[in-house]
Amino acid sequence: MKLLVQKFGGTSVASIERMEQITKYIGRAYDEGYGVVVVSSAMAGVTDSLIDLAKSADPVPPEREMDVLLATGEQQAIALLSMILRKKGYPAVSLCGWQVPIITDDVHTKARIKKVGVNRIKSLIAEGKIPVVAGFQGITEGGDITTLGRGGSDTTAVALAVALNCDCEIYTDVNGIYTADPRIVSNAKKIDYISYEEMLEMASLGAKVMQIRSVEFAAKYGVRIHVRSSFSDEEGTWILPEEEVMEKVVVRGISLDTSESRITVVKVPDKPGIAAKIFKPLGEAHIVVDMIVQNVSHQGYTDMSFTVNRADAQKAEEIVRKTAKEIGAEDVVRDDRVAKVSIIGIGMRSSYGTAAKMFEVLANKGINIMAISTSEIKISCLIDEKYAELAVRELHSTFIENEEVKTIEA
Amino acid sequence: MKLLVQKFGGTSVASIERMEQITKYIGRAYDEGYGVVVVSSAMAGVTDSLIDLAKSADPVPPEREMDVLLATGEQQAIALLSMILRKKGYPAVSLCGWQVPIITDDVHTKARIKKVGVNRIKSLIAEGKIPVVAGFQGITEGGDITTLGRGGSDTTAVALAVALNCDCEIYTDVNGIYTADPRIVSNAKKIDYISYEEMLEMASLGAKVMQIRSVEFAAKYGVRIHVRSSFSDEEGTWILPEEEVMEKVVVRGISLDTSESRITVVKVPDKPGIAAKIFKPLGEAHIVVDMIVQNVSHQGYTDMSFTVNRADAQKAEEIVRKTAKEIGAEDVVRDDRVAKVSIIGIGMRSSYGTAAKMFEVLANKGINIMAISTSEIKISCLIDEKYAELAVRELHSTFIENEEVKTIEA
Repeated sequence: MKLLVQKFGGTSVASIERMEQITKYIGRAYDEGYGVVVVSSAMAGVTDSLIDLAKSADPVPPEREMDVLLATGEQQAIALLSMILRKKGYPAVSLCGWQVPIITDDVHTKARIKKVGVNRIKSLIAEGKIPVVAGFQGITEGGDITTLGRGGSDTTAVALAVALNCDCEIYTDVNGIYTADPRIVSNAKKIDYISYEEMLEMASLGAKVMQIRSVEFAAKYGVRIHVRSSFSDEEGTWILPEEEVMEKVVVRGISLDTSESRITVVKVPDKPGIAAKIFKPLGEAHIVVDMIVQNVSHQGYTDMSFTVNRADAQKAEEIVRKTAKEIGAEDVVRDDRVAKVSIIGIGMRSSYGTAAKMFEVLANKGINIMAISTSEIKISCLIDEKYAELAVRELHSTFIENEEVKTIEA
Repeated sequence: MKLLVQKFGGTSVASIERMEQITKYIGRAYDEGYGVVVVSSAMAGVTDSLIDLAKSADPVPPEREMDVLLATGEQQAIALLSMILRKKGYPAVSLCGWQVPIITDDVHTKARIKKVGVNRIKSLIAEGKIPVVAGFQGITEGGDITTLGRGGSDTTAVALAVALNCDCEIYTDVNGIYTADPRIVSNAKKIDYISYEEMLEMASLGAKVMQIRSVEFAAKYGVRIHVRSSFSDEEGTWILPEEEVMEKVVVRGISLDTSESRITVVKVPDKPGIAAKIFKPLGEAHIVVDMIVQNVSHQGYTDMSFTVNRADAQKAEEIVRKTAKEIGAEDVVRDDRVAKVSIIGIGMRSSYGTAAKMFEVLANKGINIMAISTSEIKISCLIDEKYAELAVRELHSTFIENEEVKTIEA
């Protein structure tokens, strides 16, 4: 029997009415003869309310108890969804994480799955039942409830697909992954096929749709994921192993990240060990540094720039100011009005001149590049935030819409 | 180490503020050196909201899924209560029913406890921890979530006290069990000690305070229960084995039940088998019959009266009308305006003239008795509802307040 995991996010189970609607996707697969395993998130808003409740009990709630509390959100959703499926004649049986079981480590609130038991699910399917599994939650070997962190239901679904060796459908409130944010680029189009690596690099586009860790997990085990809308019947985006992505393009998508700040340490004496002196205290303060740029040295001095998440910018600046004084730098300058624009595509590996083309597009519009970082399949430029949308539109027009630079020879 | 089970009802954990308040009872017992096991109900109102939610999904929700849904209420309460206890320095650890485990049969929504595992609780206590157990819920041997029916948290608490061989405190929103409803009798006083049997017979007074099944359970295993208020430091009522109830009184309390209707079959031909013909169809319709009175026969005819719960009265009347026609009775009369007033006390066993005294008290006030039923420790009279409160006050004055008839020689 062909198996299929179908995962429904919070907006897909936001109300009894929405649950009634999504049963058509479950029912269709079941009627087509699939052994269907449903994974459900909590109803939209429930997890946030529970977090608020916990914070009113203790501003820093103990994480073990936080997991006990949060796990009730998905438990309620699977019970209600199973009731509705049964009302419609589909023999659903809800299963909490501990009932599957989804065995995790004991890092509460962000546990990682170690093992998935499939005996109970398989025997339910053999009886013609539809297991409806609570996403986001697991159980430690010691018998404690854990949760997998925000978006963890995606990971539950992928882990089940790995264990059952089948495809995984992720039902969400968008039609799939787009070549750029459609609110910025009116010509943005849905991507039919994307590789795991591209999906991972598309963080700013993709993270809103799927938890990054679940994509890494799928990549590791080669699970085919179909991200699609629970509000329409349209095909969505398939996330696949690279060799299965048929359409060869240079650039798969354009992503934009306006959540970072740039901090520049001005006129640093250029001596060995200076970078370590600057970045060690930031690491100790658990601040993640993204792009780092060190200019060439002039008369024994250099400028050092880096970006951090804007939420950490104030703290990072304070730490760096202290370091700057110690190492004799002239000044520290912080700029919150920056944007990181990126082009992503596995085709870049075998295509030349893509970076140069990107810089040219930005230059033609008079957009100054503050920093550049590259990976095998991604080029990112830090620019003034006010040009962010213009840059995305121009890059989309050049790399996605322009047939000349679009396709490549495999 | 002395152990103690403390159970908190819905109003005692109705809000974060209430939970903060009740930690003083838990903390005090812990600080006094007790190994404390806490049992919590769902926050007041939560279970009803979940039932409403389920009914919006399916007017007759499947019971297995109903239990999965309802169990989240207590799970949330134990997580929050544990957070608050830990914040105050008490090392609480929450446990769901399946984690204890509380093993039940598989009669969903009204399961019965078969076995209680105490290893995890005992080892937590040995580590100095405070287990905070979800009331009302259990797990079948097949690994499904069950619930124990309304008020089931009391049963959880008593079952734990049985398994741990210790006393059980039931914290609620009243100070204990009273000799009569204080809204009717201003002189009603709190009972310090009451036997299990008396408590069970005091249904109309006691059922509002504790689930009857949990008292039966306690009686079977001799668990000492202390019913007390979570809003005050006062001692409440101890429910004890008869031999431990020190204060010997004829009548422990006066109870009133206005939830019944009387149905009379008029002029029934007095032949063998008539009673069976009347009551068999009622039993088949799952209608519980309480008091039954058959008058002496006159010229081959008799009148037959009985009481049923008022919610079943209409249905019972229809059934009996059909029977009446078949057996040739003259008429069927229904009276919804009746009240059952009872005096209860183990002292009645060794005291004479109590029934006569009760009838005399009612007669002196011109109250007609429609039916009488007696047990070893209880006498009930059915009277016109309009005299109900007067009757309770007079009986209380005679049997509880009047020193002459109060105490007995053991």
